[in-house]
Amino acid sequence: MQTMYQQMSDTELANALADLKDQVAEVKARGLKLDMARGKPSPEQVGISRPMLDLLSSDSDLTDGGVDCSNYGCFEGIPSARKLAGEFLGVPPEQTIVLGSSSLNIMQDVIVHYWEKGVPGNTPWHKLESVKWLCPSPGYDRHFGLTQDLGIENIPVCMTETGPDMDEVERLVAADPSIKGMFCVPKYSNPTGCTYSDDTVRRLATMEAAPDFRIVWDNAYAVHDFGDEPDKLANIFDYAREAGNEDRILAVASTSKITFPGAGIAFFGSSPANVAEVANTLKVGLISANKLNQLMHTRFLPTLDAVREHMAKHAEFLRPRFACVEEKLTEGLAGTGCATWTHPHGGYFVSFDGPAGSAKRVGALCKELGVVLTPAGATWPGGNDPQDTNIRIAPSYPSVEDLAAALDVLVLAVKLVSAELAQEERA
Amino acid sequence: MQTMYQQMSDTELANALADLKDQVAEVKARGLKLDMARGKPSPEQVGISRPMLDLLSSDSDLTDGGVDCSNYGCFEGIPSARKLAGEFLGVPPEQTIVLGSSSLNIMQDVIVHYWEKGVPGNTPWHKLESVKWLCPSPGYDRHFGLTQDLGIENIPVCMTETGPDMDEVERLVAADPSIKGMFCVPKYSNPTGCTYSDDTVRRLATMEAAPDFRIVWDNAYAVHDFGDEPDKLANIFDYAREAGNEDRILAVASTSKITFPGAGIAFFGSSPANVAEVANTLKVGLISANKLNQLMHTRFLPTLDAVREHMAKHAEFLRPRFACVEEKLTEGLAGTGCATWTHPHGGYFVSFDGPAGSAKRVGALCKELGVVLTPAGATWPGGNDPQDTNIRIAPSYPSVEDLAAALDVLVLAVKLVSAELAQEERA
Repeated sequence: MQTMYQQMSDTELANALADLKDQVAEVKARGLKLDMARGKPSPEQVGISRPMLDLLSSDSDLTDGGVDCSNYGCFEGIPSARKLAGEFLGVPPEQTIVLGSSSLNIMQDVIVHYWEKGVPGNTPWHKLESVKWLCPSPGYDRHFGLTQDLGIENIPVCMTETGPDMDEVERLVAADPSIKGMFCVPKYSNPTGCTYSDDTVRRLATMEAAPDFRIVWDNAYAVHDFGDEPDKLANIFDYAREAGNEDRILAVASTSKITFPGAGIAFFGSSPANVAEVANTLKVGLISANKLNQLMHTRFLPTLDAVREHMAKHAEFLRPRFACVEEKLTEGLAGTGCATWTHPHGGYFVSFDGPAGSAKRVGALCKELGVVLTPAGATWPGGNDPQDTNIRIAPSYPSVEDLAAALDVLVLAVKLVSAELAQEERA
Repeated sequence: MQTMYQQMSDTELANALADLKDQVAEVKARGLKLDMARGKPSPEQVGISRPMLDLLSSDSDLTDGGVDCSNYGCFEGIPSARKLAGEFLGVPPEQTIVLGSSSLNIMQDVIVHYWEKGVPGNTPWHKLESVKWLCPSPGYDRHFGLTQDLGIENIPVCMTETGPDMDEVERLVAADPSIKGMFCVPKYSNPTGCTYSDDTVRRLATMEAAPDFRIVWDNAYAVHDFGDEPDKLANIFDYAREAGNEDRILAVASTSKITFPGAGIAFFGSSPANVAEVANTLKVGLISANKLNQLMHTRFLPTLDAVREHMAKHAEFLRPRFACVEEKLTEGLAGTGCATWTHPHGGYFVSFDGPAGSAKRVGALCKELGVVLTPAGATWPGGNDPQDTNIRIAPSYPSVEDLAAALDVLVLAVKLVSAELAQEERA
């Protein structure tokens, strides 16, 4: 598709460029300082979890199902937290481990474990000549960093509206046994906001793959709906169990974007064999996790229903911000041919694509105008967005007013860069 | 030295054995159920930290030195916690990282990091044909487990009253560059309770060793005094800095035995270069640690003086228990030639040695009589106590009454096994 600038006559384009440059100069003079880079809730939004801090005090019962949460022990997590973890991940409580505050840390521990010692019965990954990993892209940069850090080769596969391009995934995985895993954010994916279709989930669980192929199923946004019609995600364990592939699925989630970012509790769920093996491995380096934090969380959020009720409060903060993104982008860019973007029903991000070769320039221009975006390229492995089109919009942190101002700047930057690209084509 | 049973005539020994067996039968009939295995505080002792739970509530200021502790960010730890960490470890706050609840986890992360990628400028340990590690023994089984898990060869070196046998340590380390590190619990060592002498600390910091040789300086009992005259530990960083070896020292500590076991905060301290490198590494798998827990801790224990005041309350629980151990062992075994034991001024353990070949049998007999001890051998790498003499006594958890009963059983078991060993010698 051509941009409106490509369709203009030379004179029209020159006029448009002059006008856009005037606008840019005007904005620059305003000395804005806005941040749309970070997928973190605003302070007001975080505040809704403050009542949780009242639930443990010096005279509280600090036991949970007979477990003393104030002393060592109970490595796998306290009973109420494992029950909640099971509801999040779609497995029985016995197939969960509840740990500290970071699901990213759990993913790293498990991947490093396989790298060191291998999936039981298979060669340790560090002894293989080549280990590759599939990275649905645009995706989450911190995922890609885990494997990159181990020297694993990250291979991007395209995200579609129904999840990763499954024809491509199946083709790659069947042809190359050195592909040992894949990252998935199956619901309200970071950053596209798409939720994997039933068919995608089924194919991931049942496709042919190396015996030590593992899917990191990061259900980070399991309950993070803000739309009127929440997306529904199939339970991958149901498909995997039926196909005898339950060991393939390494599911995680956390309450970091439910209660306090960085101070939540994190969940791991997998097959009974994996859970036993992972627990034995993690026990080498941990006596037991912070069970008082687990207890505070399950007193605050004892059931998935309580979680959903709490998430409805989060939605009140997020809904107007995502509406603002949609409105500003539509108002500024609809019909220009300069951009497409996603329209998620939950999660923390909107994925934005400008013309080929635009994203880095748009990011730089926005920065010059006082608006910080997630660095262009960050959503692709190694920071290499092959078309240089993708920008992750993180609207949760700023106020709606600041967000609107930031989006005006983004729209202006996209227009100017698009016009410049059209001009350069002609030169 | 001979035991009193070895010095008896055949008739005397037969009579002693018959008498001891009668006593054992009597104890067995009582059906005791006592536990002296675990280095954890009693529930009453843990209770002294409950007031900490009142310090954060829904209307608290959740910032620390300008850092919002309720949201992502501030990876290295909040300012007040880094200040406290520095006081614990003997380094400036900038040379610390404060993380989640487990110092064991930090040690593992750092060792695994070097195993994966090497100390900067050196070969990754997993690529070396042989990697060895010095394990002062008796020592802490979970330390030994960290290196064993990576296939590193653990080499025991004897503990003396002034720390590890430094002649032996220096000899081994100078002769063999495949020795890459060493575990140290320098104050109230687990389990001997000894504190390293100034000379030991200096020699560890300054001795010749491979450039990527590392000392895990686990100051787990830095402030855990219960005697009238607390031991004093030299600051190893002072010696190391002077010798240009500051990178050698990886110091850790935690509040697990100060506030809530498993739910404390953990400290890492090292040279500026190491702290920067370790932070960069850990950031791959962690956005930020639980800063609300850090904040709750530093509001409760803002200074090292506050910590010492709090530790004095812990001492009230520990002092009578350690006195009971000393009393019962003296009463039952002094002058018998059957045992030696340590007399610590702090920490959590008494290290007990019976005659050669006795420890496993004493453990088994105690178990039969209803008293659980730390498994014999656990204090040596791989569980291999070469003389089979050592038993770790962990008196903190039981009530003084239960502890006294358990020690009576231990004394009886040591006597019977010693008499049996004397008898077997003659057969």
